[in-house]
Amino acid sequence: MKAAVIGGGVIGGGWAARFLLNGWDVDVFDPDPEAARKLDEVLANARGALPMLYERALPAEGQLRLVGTVAEAVSGADYIQESVPERLDLKHRVLAEVEAAAPDAPIGSSTSGFKPSELRTGMTNPGRLMVAHPFNPVYLLPLVELVSVGGDAGAADRVKDMLISVGMRPLVVRAEIDAHLADRFLEAVWREALWLIKDDIATTEEIDEAIRLGFGLRWAQMGLFETYRVAGGEGGMTHFVEQFGPALAWPWTKLMDVPELTPELAKKIGDQSDAQSGALSIRELEALRDRNLVAILRALKGEGSGAGQVLADHDATLPQPMDASVPMVTVARVVPSDWTDYNGHMNESRYGQVFSDAADGVMVHIGAGPDYIAGGLSYFTVETSIKYLVETHAGEAIRVETRVLIGEGKKLKLAHEMKRASDGEVLATCEQFLIHVSLETRSSCNPNTNVQAAVEALAAAHR
Amino acid sequence: MKAAVIGGGVIGGGWAARFLLNGWDVDVFDPDPEAARKLDEVLANARGALPMLYERALPAEGQLRLVGTVAEAVSGADYIQESVPERLDLKHRVLAEVEAAAPDAPIGSSTSGFKPSELRTGMTNPGRLMVAHPFNPVYLLPLVELVSVGGDAGAADRVKDMLISVGMRPLVVRAEIDAHLADRFLEAVWREALWLIKDDIATTEEIDEAIRLGFGLRWAQMGLFETYRVAGGEGGMTHFVEQFGPALAWPWTKLMDVPELTPELAKKIGDQSDAQSGALSIRELEALRDRNLVAILRALKGEGSGAGQVLADHDATLPQPMDASVPMVTVARVVPSDWTDYNGHMNESRYGQVFSDAADGVMVHIGAGPDYIAGGLSYFTVETSIKYLVETHAGEAIRVETRVLIGEGKKLKLAHEMKRASDGEVLATCEQFLIHVSLETRSSCNPNTNVQAAVEALAAAHR
Repeated sequence: MKAAVIGGGVIGGGWAARFLLNGWDVDVFDPDPEAARKLDEVLANARGALPMLYERALPAEGQLRLVGTVAEAVSGADYIQESVPERLDLKHRVLAEVEAAAPDAPIGSSTSGFKPSELRTGMTNPGRLMVAHPFNPVYLLPLVELVSVGGDAGAADRVKDMLISVGMRPLVVRAEIDAHLADRFLEAVWREALWLIKDDIATTEEIDEAIRLGFGLRWAQMGLFETYRVAGGEGGMTHFVEQFGPALAWPWTKLMDVPELTPELAKKIGDQSDAQSGALSIRELEALRDRNLVAILRALKGEGSGAGQVLADHDATLPQPMDASVPMVTVARVVPSDWTDYNGHMNESRYGQVFSDAADGVMVHIGAGPDYIAGGLSYFTVETSIKYLVETHAGEAIRVETRVLIGEGKKLKLAHEMKRASDGEVLATCEQFLIHVSLETRSSCNPNTNVQAAVEALAAAHR
Repeated sequence: MKAAVIGGGVIGGGWAARFLLNGWDVDVFDPDPEAARKLDEVLANARGALPMLYERALPAEGQLRLVGTVAEAVSGADYIQESVPERLDLKHRVLAEVEAAAPDAPIGSSTSGFKPSELRTGMTNPGRLMVAHPFNPVYLLPLVELVSVGGDAGAADRVKDMLISVGMRPLVVRAEIDAHLADRFLEAVWREALWLIKDDIATTEEIDEAIRLGFGLRWAQMGLFETYRVAGGEGGMTHFVEQFGPALAWPWTKLMDVPELTPELAKKIGDQSDAQSGALSIRELEALRDRNLVAILRALKGEGSGAGQVLADHDATLPQPMDASVPMVTVARVVPSDWTDYNGHMNESRYGQVFSDAADGVMVHIGAGPDYIAGGLSYFTVETSIKYLVETHAGEAIRVETRVLIGEGKKLKLAHEMKRASDGEVLATCEQFLIHVSLETRSSCNPNTNVQAAVEALAAAHR
């Protein structure tokens, strides 16, 4: 697959990274003389963060080219993403160039404000144009607002599937309005925040604390309405809304009026932000943001909630490393940043996790995976012995090769080697002894015939 | 310490749980005949979630009493928290009863809307009254908006310290305005959301997706301004704000007008919310919310960001289980929900984490903790061998008892037993072999004299 990315700033670069790291070829056009450097910076951030979200290896990176013309970028593209600055005349000019060179491919616009009908004015094949509005950092956040109202439904469906295939969650917005959905909320909060700063009620730092230590933590997982549904309790949501109603008439906000954004107010915000966050450079803040996002997204993945479920779904589409060769590759992944300790290397407990995952890979191969467990039978690990040979660091690609040493009756003994993917150096070894049990009686028993045969075949092949 | 909690609903109950689980005695007054049941439900949620946030054991729970009068509740209290319904006349009546029985103790009000000056009207000792506005669930979210403008600074400082001691982060709001800070943002978003639903642009579920898959993930860690600072890049915040300015004049929001909250609109929201979340009961949603919050807070704790840093700071104030008795207790904690696997018990890799933490406890005791490591010397684990004896479940309190088997030169061998705290049953055992290394040469060497002596003393005591 090939994506064309028109405009290579923070958003365009984020799109390029998202496609590239999911195995697409990407051609980027951006006339900015600094485009190559800016693209490299976004890509470096993305390469350092996105693969850490997954328990499996992403596909091999596609080919990236920074090309000299829009025509070159869109030629042969399966999908074209426009991320040029928010000026309608500029977007129209770029879309005309796109149409001249690529008459059919679907086009998504990253616009945060314009409606598809505004963008389509003057187009020859307007139906294939839709809004595909992402959120920064595009390579980590799954949300894309997809607004295709009045366009070609087939094109919208294809784009939806393509975005899902690169780990995103297209939210189909059923009506075209200025700023779609999320940015309307951001705008509302932004106005309120400007008043609070202008009137010296709070600083940028105090406002950020008020968000990130309270409702921000709720919104990361449930959003607005489900949070209120829980808060409302047994009375039900309709009752809760009715109770909430009177507050709307209270003088709680200044939103009836638009604060004038004077140079003085802009400077005040800039100064407060410097005081709050100036100790870290933008690059350091980006790295902090991405580490936090990796950690939060991985936490939600464990719970199967919100963005975590999007991630889990995408993980499940990635190829299982497991094959029946000798030795079997049972794990292929990148070491995430939340696995490292104060010595700067992978925490010893995470070796246990990698080898536990390797055993899960064997379980799936021998037919003793989740379905088998749901049927009341499982292997339990009785003893694990790990040798730590070489330090392992966040971001390193690793694989585990596994041999079955014993596979007789209820006994299963596995030997794993964890290797650095780049050069095959052995980083750690592990022996695991497992016993087959009945989950009902909670005592040991033989596996079923098919599992037993699969175990014996592996043991024979690995002998 | 004793807290008086007046009003025992979701917020009052959350306060009671926060104090109780941090070792305070709590007297609750609530005239609702259902108060005991409601309080029990909040406490059950809190007991199931709060201890999971920490790597150390919380203090033993205080005594909880549901008492028959305000006077009884506030008698002898070090702190009084008022959480009755949002009616000013009711709050004034309750405060008068409080003053009659407790003339001096500081009083915090959970009000989300009223200003301290409004609440103080008619009070004999008004300076000790302040707004202490928490966020649901109070037992998990650290934020408290503390508004003490015009009051007794000494009382406010004492309350601030008390709230910090129970793991909260008081945000001192420097001016009194309706709805303080955070609820102004919530109100702004709420208004915008009502319009989107009323006009059939989006459903409750679509709005929640637009939040939790995008900017909600950013706000959980950085809030509004730091997020924009990063997005703005090298140009600086003042420049970014100036660019953002023109959008304020665009017709992006309907916030200039207040939507009329008709019964029809309330029902529409109720119906959409049922379709979105009705498959889970409120209790199930609460449990999901709390598991997600535990996972997100623990993820942020690992990164030392936002609410995670609040948590880490509080964790550090909890007593270290480590003592020099034989055997030493090196870990005392609760098993968090994000440590369990699809078999419903603690994932095998987390045993490795517990024993790794136990070894860290030994390191601190022998003087080879973070400072020693910063000086360029450390013990590295070379081999770990774990036997899994009994299943361990989320929420169980566990402890690890550790013996030094070998402590000679650069060699250190530890034997750990992980036990269920309630009955002392051994759940797993571990032997760890560690080698002392120089972090500069990355090769083995003897520890320094003090560490060596401490290791030998432990080995002798444990022989």
